[in-house]
Amino acid sequence: MQPSERVREILSWYPSDNPGTKSSLARLMMTGRLAGTGKLVILPVDQGFEHGPDRSFAPNPEGYDPRYHPDLAVEAGCNGYAAPLGLIEAAADRYPGTLPLILKANNSDSLGGPADAWSAVTSSVDEALRLGCVGIGFTIYPGSDHRNDMYGEIREMTEEAKAKGLAVIVWSYPRGHGIDKAGETAIDVVAYGAHIAALLGAHIIKVKPPTEHIAVDAAKKAIEKAKVPLGTLADRIRHVVRCTFAGRRIVIFSGGEAKETPQILAEIKAIHDGGGFGSIVGRNSFQRPRADGLGLLKSIIDIYSK
Amino acid sequence: MQPSERVREILSWYPSDNPGTKSSLARLMMTGRLAGTGKLVILPVDQGFEHGPDRSFAPNPEGYDPRYHPDLAVEAGCNGYAAPLGLIEAAADRYPGTLPLILKANNSDSLGGPADAWSAVTSSVDEALRLGCVGIGFTIYPGSDHRNDMYGEIREMTEEAKAKGLAVIVWSYPRGHGIDKAGETAIDVVAYGAHIAALLGAHIIKVKPPTEHIAVDAAKKAIEKAKVPLGTLADRIRHVVRCTFAGRRIVIFSGGEAKETPQILAEIKAIHDGGGFGSIVGRNSFQRPRADGLGLLKSIIDIYSK
Amino acid sequence: MQPSERVREILSWYPSDNPGTKSSLARLMMTGRLAGTGKLVILPVDQGFEHGPDRSFAPNPEGYDPRYHPDLAVEAGCNGYAAPLGLIEAAADRYPGTLPLILKANNSDSLGGPADAWSAVTSSVDEALRLGCVGIGFTIYPGSDHRNDMYGEIREMTEEAKAKGLAVIVWSYPRGHGIDKAGETAIDVVAYGAHIAALLGAHIIKVKPPTEHIAVDAAKKAIEKAKVPLGTLADRIRHVVRCTFAGRRIVIFSGGEAKETPQILAEIKAIHDGGGFGSIVGRNSFQRPRADGLGLLKSIIDIYSK
Amino acid sequence: MQPSERVREILSWYPSDNPGTKSSLARLMMTGRLAGTGKLVILPVDQGFEHGPDRSFAPNPEGYDPRYHPDLAVEAGCNGYAAPLGLIEAAADRYPGTLPLILKANNSDSLGGPADAWSAVTSSVDEALRLGCVGIGFTIYPGSDHRNDMYGEIREMTEEAKAKGLAVIVWSYPRGHGIDKAGETAIDVVAYGAHIAALLGAHIIKVKPPTEHIAVDAAKKAIEKAKVPLGTLADRIRHVVRCTFAGRRIVIFSGGEAKETPQILAEIKAIHDGGGFGSIVGRNSFQRPRADGLGLLKSIIDIYSK
Amino acid sequence: MQPSERVREILSWYPSDNPGTKSSLARLMMTGRLAGTGKLVILPVDQGFEHGPDRSFAPNPEGYDPRYHPDLAVEAGCNGYAAPLGLIEAAADRYPGTLPLILKANNSDSLGGPADAWSAVTSSVDEALRLGCVGIGFTIYPGSDHRNDMYGEIREMTEEAKAKGLAVIVWSYPRGHGIDKAGETAIDVVAYGAHIAALLGAHIIKVKPPTEHIAVDAAKKAIEKAKVPLGTLADRIRHVVRCTFAGRRIVIFSGGEAKETPQILAEIKAIHDGGGFGSIVGRNSFQRPRADGLGLLKSIIDIYSK
Repeated sequence: MQPSERVREILSWYPSDNPGTKSSLARLMMTGRLAGTGKLVILPVDQGFEHGPDRSFAPNPEGYDPRYHPDLAVEAGCNGYAAPLGLIEAAADRYPGTLPLILKANNSDSLGGPADAWSAVTSSVDEALRLGCVGIGFTIYPGSDHRNDMYGEIREMTEEAKAKGLAVIVWSYPRGHGIDKAGETAIDVVAYGAHIAALLGAHIIKVKPPTEHIAVDAAKKAIEKAKVPLGTLADRIRHVVRCTFAGRRIVIFSGGEAKETPQILAEIKAIHDGGGFGSIVGRNSFQRPRADGLGLLKSIIDIYSK
Repeated sequence: MQPSERVREILSWYPSDNPGTKSSLARLMMTGRLAGTGKLVILPVDQGFEHGPDRSFAPNPEGYDPRYHPDLAVEAGCNGYAAPLGLIEAAADRYPGTLPLILKANNSDSLGGPADAWSAVTSSVDEALRLGCVGIGFTIYPGSDHRNDMYGEIREMTEEAKAKGLAVIVWSYPRGHGIDKAGETAIDVVAYGAHIAALLGAHIIKVKPPTEHIAVDAAKKAIEKAKVPLGTLADRIRHVVRCTFAGRRIVIFSGGEAKETPQILAEIKAIHDGGGFGSIVGRNSFQRPRADGLGLLKSIIDIYSK
Repeated sequence: MQPSERVREILSWYPSDNPGTKSSLARLMMTGRLAGTGKLVILPVDQGFEHGPDRSFAPNPEGYDPRYHPDLAVEAGCNGYAAPLGLIEAAADRYPGTLPLILKANNSDSLGGPADAWSAVTSSVDEALRLGCVGIGFTIYPGSDHRNDMYGEIREMTEEAKAKGLAVIVWSYPRGHGIDKAGETAIDVVAYGAHIAALLGAHIIKVKPPTEHIAVDAAKKAIEKAKVPLGTLADRIRHVVRCTFAGRRIVIFSGGEAKETPQILAEIKAIHDGGGFGSIVGRNSFQRPRADGLGLLKSIIDIYSK
Repeated sequence: MQPSERVREILSWYPSDNPGTKSSLARLMMTGRLAGTGKLVILPVDQGFEHGPDRSFAPNPEGYDPRYHPDLAVEAGCNGYAAPLGLIEAAADRYPGTLPLILKANNSDSLGGPADAWSAVTSSVDEALRLGCVGIGFTIYPGSDHRNDMYGEIREMTEEAKAKGLAVIVWSYPRGHGIDKAGETAIDVVAYGAHIAALLGAHIIKVKPPTEHIAVDAAKKAIEKAKVPLGTLADRIRHVVRCTFAGRRIVIFSGGEAKETPQILAEIKAIHDGGGFGSIVGRNSFQRPRADGLGLLKSIIDIYSK
Repeated sequence: MQPSERVREILSWYPSDNPGTKSSLARLMMTGRLAGTGKLVILPVDQGFEHGPDRSFAPNPEGYDPRYHPDLAVEAGCNGYAAPLGLIEAAADRYPGTLPLILKANNSDSLGGPADAWSAVTSSVDEALRLGCVGIGFTIYPGSDHRNDMYGEIREMTEEAKAKGLAVIVWSYPRGHGIDKAGETAIDVVAYGAHIAALLGAHIIKVKPPTEHIAVDAAKKAIEKAKVPLGTLADRIRHVVRCTFAGRRIVIFSGGEAKETPQILAEIKAIHDGGGFGSIVGRNSFQRPRADGLGLLKSIIDIYSK
C-alpha cells in the first residue's frame, strides 16, 4: 500500500531525515486500522519492568505470555508494539516485517535505583536493527539531577538511529526534585517537556495529557498575557501540539492508570479534537480480559478514524 | 547426540537468537545425566570470591584445588560448571568441549566495596570465548542505587555475547537499601527480579526459592485479587516461572546456605513439581566430602529426571 | 561574491585553521546585509530550551513554527541562524547552502539539572555536518564546579570541528557558586570569560555586555594601576575586545532580556563604537510581532553597517 | 638454557595461557641464581613513588640513580626487576633481553589521593611491550570502596597482557575502611586477598606474610573447625599457598619494612619451609650500602636454593 | 647545527625514547642563545588562563597581543615558548619550525572549578602535532583528591606523545587538602613532586624553587640522618636534581610571582650553581615593558651560559 497524502505530508515535516528513517515512520503510519490517517495507536508493554509482573499481568493472566501482546496489537489493528528487549526478542518472529516494533531502549524498575529519576539504558540501536524494529523508544525526565546523562544517552542513540534508518520515539516526563506531583502534568510543564523532546530531535513524542494547572510563574504570566485558551482538555492538547513545532512533530499521549471505559474514551475524544496524533494505550488494554481489551482498542481507534 | 524434542521445544522459545547461541544452550541441555530433559543442574564455584577460601573450602579441603570442581561436576553428571576467570583458566583443559563452562563475569567479595550492592566486572565475553565457554554468568541486584551501572554492564555484555554465539545466564537478586532482608526472598520480589532478567534478554535466569511473604503492597493487592495460590513452595515456583514469560524462559534456583540433605531434597522436589527448570548447587555439594557431595548431586538429579 | 578585504584580514587572524574552517567563517561573514563588513548579526533560537515554549513564543505565536526563524533571519539580512538540533533539522531545507546555520550543540533547561551550571551536550559535530551547518555553538560556564567536564567536552568538539572544516562559536558565561549575580557581568569577569574562550580555541566568542563593576580584587588593582578607561559601555567593549587576543578574535555580544527599542539600539551603538564585532539578538527580535522584529533587526544592522 | 623440569611443571598449572605468556613466565623463572628452581627473588623499586625519594634513597644515596637497581638485581642474581614507568625507561637498555623487567603499572603516593585506597594507573600493557618487559605489576586493595574500579582496571589489563604474551603479577593488599590495621595482615584476610588475585587471573601473586590473627568471625569458625595449623609462620605460608589454588599459582611474599638481617632471614626460611615461591625484597636490599644489600640478597637466595 | 656533545650526553639519559622524541628534545636544546649548553630558558604564557587577562597583561599591555610573546621569546634567545591552545594557534605561523613550541595541554582558571586542585585538559597530542609543537606541557598536583584522574590523563597523553615523537614536560606542583601552604614548597615535597613526575615518564620536569622547610616527619628523619646539606638554595636545587634520577632528567624551575630583578638573578644563579637545568620565566618577563623584559631574560640567559 502506498503512503497516503496525509502520511506524505507528515513525512515532509522531517526534511532532514534519510529515506531509511522516513520509511520506518511510514511503516508505522501505514499499519493497522489507522493506516494512512496520520493517527497512531500503539500498544506498549513495559509495565512489567516498571511495576513488576504481578501488578501488570495478574489482572489478566494471559498477559504473562510474551506472545499475547503482539497478537493483541495485530488483532486490534494497532500501528505498532513497543516493549523492552526481552519481550521483543520473545515474539519478534510472530509478524516479521508486518507489525512495526519499537524497542524500548531504557527502562526503570520500582525496586530502587538512582537517587533522582533516571532510567537505565537496557538495549541499543544495533539490537533494534537485529530485531527488525522500526524505531527505538526512550524515556527522558527533564528536571532530573541526571539530566545531562540522560540527554547525553538520547543524543548518542538518536544520532545512531537516524544514521541507520530508524525512528526515534521519546517519552518525555518532566520529573525531579524541583517539580512537585501536580507540576508533572501541569500544562506548561508538559508542553515544555514536549518541546525539549522535539529540540533533541525526536520524531514522535509521547507525553501525558496535561491538566489546567500552570506550575511556573513566568510561564503563567506569558500564557495569561497571550490569552491561550486552556479550559478544556482539547484546548490543552492543542497547546501542547503547538508547542511541539507548531504541529510539525507527531505528539501522542499516554493513557495513564487503568480507568473506566467512558472516562478513557472521553479523554481520547479530547485528544483527537485537540489535534493530538494518537495514543499509547498499555495498562487499559492488556490488563482487561482479551475481549474487553480488544473492544476498548477498537473504540479508541474508531474515534481516531473519524 | 541429537537434541531431544523437549530441548528443541525449549530452543523454540528463543526465536531471536542466532544458531551459535542456540548451539551453546543446546550443549548445556544435552550434557550430563539430565541431557535431553530440559532440566539443568549446574555446579557453581564462586563462593571463594564471595566469602573467601576458608569459609568455602575448609569444610572439604579437596575444594581448594581448582581441578576438584570440574571433576565433581562431570562425575556427578551435572550440565555445566560456572566459576570466575581464574578457576576456569586453571581447569579449562580438563574436559575440553565436553563439560559446558560458564564464565562468571562479575563478582563480589565480602571485604568491602561500593556503598550499595554492585558486583565488579571481572572478565569479558572475549575471555569466555578464549576459554571455550558456552556462556557468561552475571549477577544483577535490582533495587541497588547502582542499578543503572549494572544494567548498563549486562546490556553491553549481553549484546556482545549473543552476537558471538554465547548464552547469557543472569543471577537476579533484588537487594538494596529499599528492600529489607525478608523482602529479598519475598515471592513478589523474586518474581519481579526474574521478570527483569527476562526483559534484559537473559536466556537462563537464576533466582532464590521464594518465601510466602509479599513485600510490596500494590503487588499484594494484585496477587490477592487474582487469587494466585502461593501456599506451597511448588506454588511459588510455578508463579515465578509464569512471571518469567509464562514459562518460556529457563528459570533455575539456587540452593542457598548449606543445609541438611532431607531439607535440600524436599526443596528440589518442590522446584521440580512447580515446573522449575533446575538448580544451581554450590556450597551444598562441594563443601561436603566428595562421596557425600556426589551422593547429594545424584539424588537431586534423580528428582529432576522423573 | 568574493570575500572583502576586511574579511580576508579577519581570516588572517586564524593562521592555524584549515581552508575548510576558513571557508565556513567566510560564509558567515559574507552573508546578509552585513556581508563583507566583518560585522555579524546572528539570530539565535534556544530560548525554547532554556525557558520553555510558552515564555519564548507566546508573546509572538508565529515563533512556535520552526520555519519562522530562518525566514526571519533571511528577511532581516542576518549573517546566520543558531539553534538546537530539532529546530535546525526542521528547517535545514529552507535555504540550503545560503543561510549559514550554527548547531547549538549543548543546552540547558530551567526545569532542573546538575547542581552547578552545566549544559547538556545535545548534538555533535557530525550532526552539524549532516545538516550543512557552518559551525557549532557551545556554552561554557567558567566558574562552575563542572568546569573540567565542560572544558573537556568543548576540547573534543573543537578539535573535531576544526578537523572537519567547521567554525566554533563559544558562549562564555562565567557562573558558579563562587561568582555572585553582579560578578557574572563584571567587566573583569566578562573579559576573563572571553579570554578563556579564546585560549580554548574558539573562533567566535559571545559574551554579555559588561558592567562597570570589577569583581576580583587583584584584577581591580591591575586595572586601576593601568588606568584602563571603563566609564562607558564602549570603553568596556573595547577592553573586552582587547582581552580577546588584542582584537584578533571575533567577539560578539548578547542582547540579554527583552528591552525597549531605544535602549537596545543605544547598547548596539556602544558595542559598535567599542569595536565589538556584532550581536546575537534572540528574544528581542523573535518575541515581537514580525514587522517589529524585522524593524529592530534592520535598525541594528544599520548601526553595524556604518 | 632449557626450562627445568620444575619450571615445566609450574607452567603446566597455566593451561589456558598462550605460548607468549608462558615464555614470559619461563624467562622469569630461568633467570638469576634461582634459575630452574621455581623459586623467585624479585627486586622492586616503587618506594620512591610510595614514600618519596628521601625516605627511599637517602639511607643509601646510590639508589637515587636509576641504573643502580637493575645493576644490583643482576649482580645479586635476582630473577627480575619491577619498577614504575620512569625507572624502567631510564634503564631498559642496560641488560636488554636478559634481565626480566616488570612494569609496575599502578602506583600510589603518600601526599594525598582518593578518599579510600586506590592506586593510580600510571602505565599500560603497550608500554610494557615497548620496553621489553616480561610482565606487568598491579596492586589491588580488596576491601576498598573503589574495589569495582580497581577490579575493572586489572580486568582490562590482564586480558590485554595475556593476549600479548605478558605475565600478570598482582600485589594483593586487602585494605579499606572495613578492615583495621591488624586485619590487613590477618591470616584469613591475606589468604582471601591471595585467592581473589588468583580468581582475577593473576599468574604470580604477592602478599604480605600473615600473622596468626583471624579477622573475620565466620572464617575463624571454619578454620578452627577444620583444625588448620597456623601456629608458625611456615604453617601460615602453607595455608596461604593452599588458598591460592592448592599451590597451583605462584605466591610470593613481600619483605615489608626495613628490618635486621637475622629477622629477615628467619622470615625467608619460614616462607621457604611453608612452600612459598619466593620474595620481593625492596627496602631491605636497596636501602643498605651496596655490599650489605648484595650480601642480604645472596643469603636470601641461598635459602631458596636449598 | 649538529647537537653538541652535552646535548648528546643528555639525550643518552633517555635510552627508551624513539628518534622522534629525541629530535624534539634536541630541537629544544639546540635553539636560542643557550643552544648546545644543555640549559633551557622557556617563556610560558598561561597566566591569562590562570589569573585572567587583566592581572596578566594590564601591567604591560603589549602582552594582550598573541604575537608579542613568541616575538619576545625569539628576540630574547629563549629555547622555546609554552602556551595554551588558542595562543599557539594565533601565532604558530610566526616562526614555523624555528621557535620550539610547547602546547600547554591542561589549564586552570581562578573563577572556580573542582573542589580539589585539578586542571582541565584543554588540548591534545594530535593538536600539538597539528600545530608543529615539539612537546606538550601538563600540570599535575600530587596530593590532590583527584590524583588518579590526573595521573590517568598524563599517562594516556605521555604514551601517545612518545609514540608520536613529542617531548613531555610536566609541571609538578604538590597541592591538596593534606598539604599546607608552606608544605607546597618544602624541600622534601618539591623533591617528591619532581620524583613522581620522573616516574610518570616526563622528559622535562618543572618545579618551584624549594624552601628549607621539611614538611613530612619521616622525610625529615631520613634527610637529617643522611646529613643532606640544604642550607642554601643551591644545595636544595642540587638535592631536587639528585631526587630526579640522580640528575638524569632535565629539571627546570619556575620563577614564581613577579619580583625585583636582583632577587630574580640571585635565584637564577643559585639554580645554576645547584645544577638546575634552567628556568621557566613568565610573569617576570612579559609583564615588564618590552625592553626591561628583554633585559631580564638576557641577564638570566647570561647566567646560564657561564
